Amino acid sequence: MPSEEIISSKDNPNIKLCQRLISSKKERYADGLFVLEGLRLVEDAIAHYAPIEQVLVTKSAAEKQNALLAQVDLKGLSIRIISNELGAKISATEQTQGVFAVCRFLPCPALESALKPDGHYLVLVNLQDPGNLGMILRTADAMGIDGVLLCGCCDIYSPKVVRATMGSLFRVPFWNTCKIETLLPLLHEKRIHTFAAVIDSAAQEIRSCDFSAGSAVLIGNEGNGLPDSVSAACNTCMTIPMQGTVNSLNAAMAAGIILWELQGGKR
Amino acid sequence: MPSEEIISSKDNPNIKLCQRLISSKKERYADGLFVLEGLRLVEDAIAHYAPIEQVLVTKSAAEKQNALLAQVDLKGLSIRIISNELGAKISATEQTQGVFAVCRFLPCPALESALKPDGHYLVLVNLQDPGNLGMILRTADAMGIDGVLLCGCCDIYSPKVVRATMGSLFRVPFWNTCKIETLLPLLHEKRIHTFAAVIDSAAQEIRSCDFSAGSAVLIGNEGNGLPDSVSAACNTCMTIPMQGTVNSLNAAMAAGIILWELQGGKR
Repeated sequence: MPSEEIISSKDNPNIKLCQRLISSKKERYADGLFVLEGLRLVEDAIAHYAPIEQVLVTKSAAEKQNALLAQVDLKGLSIRIISNELGAKISATEQTQGVFAVCRFLPCPALESALKPDGHYLVLVNLQDPGNLGMILRTADAMGIDGVLLCGCCDIYSPKVVRATMGSLFRVPFWNTCKIETLLPLLHEKRIHTFAAVIDSAAQEIRSCDFSAGSAVLIGNEGNGLPDSVSAACNTCMTIPMQGTVNSLNAAMAAGIILWELQGGKR
Repeated sequence: MPSEEIISSKDNPNIKLCQRLISSKKERYADGLFVLEGLRLVEDAIAHYAPIEQVLVTKSAAEKQNALLAQVDLKGLSIRIISNELGAKISATEQTQGVFAVCRFLPCPALESALKPDGHYLVLVNLQDPGNLGMILRTADAMGIDGVLLCGCCDIYSPKVVRATMGSLFRVPFWNTCKIETLLPLLHEKRIHTFAAVIDSAAQEIRSCDFSAGSAVLIGNEGNGLPDSVSAACNTCMTIPMQGTVNSLNAAMAAGIILWELQGGKR
């Protein structure tokens, strides 16, 4: 463990930076930085060569988790120790583990060149619940999807979403802040078949959809689904047959079943 | 709306009952009663002839939602008006809608006679997260599953689970507090094939499992999965093939994919 001084002033620029980043989307996008919290998540970030700027650890975390922290291959990063009080201040959880990292936004290649004509993609349009977005990213990771494209969703770099992804953030390629107006023509230009997920018994049943070629499935907002103009512009409207009421599948669960079928179609 | 007196004393026996029921599992099971909160949930309960004992509505909910409440077919139940302060006291949410019902535990027929040899069942063993349990019940509802059997899970009648089911509690047959030691022999006696959901690449892939006959899938605890003795006693160990890390499917999502395959196999 490092022997440097313990940061204990709330006016310390690193602490002020963290506070700004966890509380404001605007600040995150102004700096292109976000905060990771939790030993496991920080470990995942380091293992995946995420562009970490600094690692902050509280005094008691440094003492308690000395053995664990010592096992982390820091790849040259140094650790700054902060007081426990400051740890509580920059934490987005009720009981912090006391391990934080400030990380630059994850790099992603230009979409135009990255989209593969035989790839399988998930397009999320106006999704607003951080827990749902995180769980969908985890599931996309499990299903080995080629990419998640985010249009007008809640901020993927918010502390809640980052935590809910359980590290899948570093494993699934994703494109943030896409524009649906330009994305759909681009997908079609690449000959990727677009499927709009809708709640409509007249739409094609998902089990009879052919996902063997390049496919992108579009999923809409929790309450309102996809805008009509968007589903109308897709190649196929498809639906998950349900027995219960319309409310009985939540957005993340519907996305999970879609990802499962998409993965099955790939093989 | 009724014109009776507004209950405003925290010592009122109805209020004290609600407080006991929302805060303690022991009290719920001593009385065989639980609390529903939210207009939609109370409406669902009434529509499904749930054994409601009383409906409580705050003064401001009665004013604001007069039109909505007037549309609810109360089936002879009367509404008691309570003060807004008491509404906040008996609420399990941060911002209450102010609509509550006290309901008897839902009746279910004896398992021995209810289990159908060609039925499709989900058995949850030691599941501990209320949000997961609620979401699984919703999904079981959407998939038209014949029943959910709960062994050692978190309490289905806790406010968090009840809320997370979004009313599916009243639509999906479920059996609470089953004992796995007696349940497995009973399922086998009924010639229902038992599938243990495990994380083990040597187990049978779920897509190649035959769910056309009577089937029960067992899902274990979020962290530890099924006890080895339980999966060993099942007819088949099956698994969801994954690309990512072991952590990349949460318990509710895994259950959702299993329910989806189970439903597909039924047809």
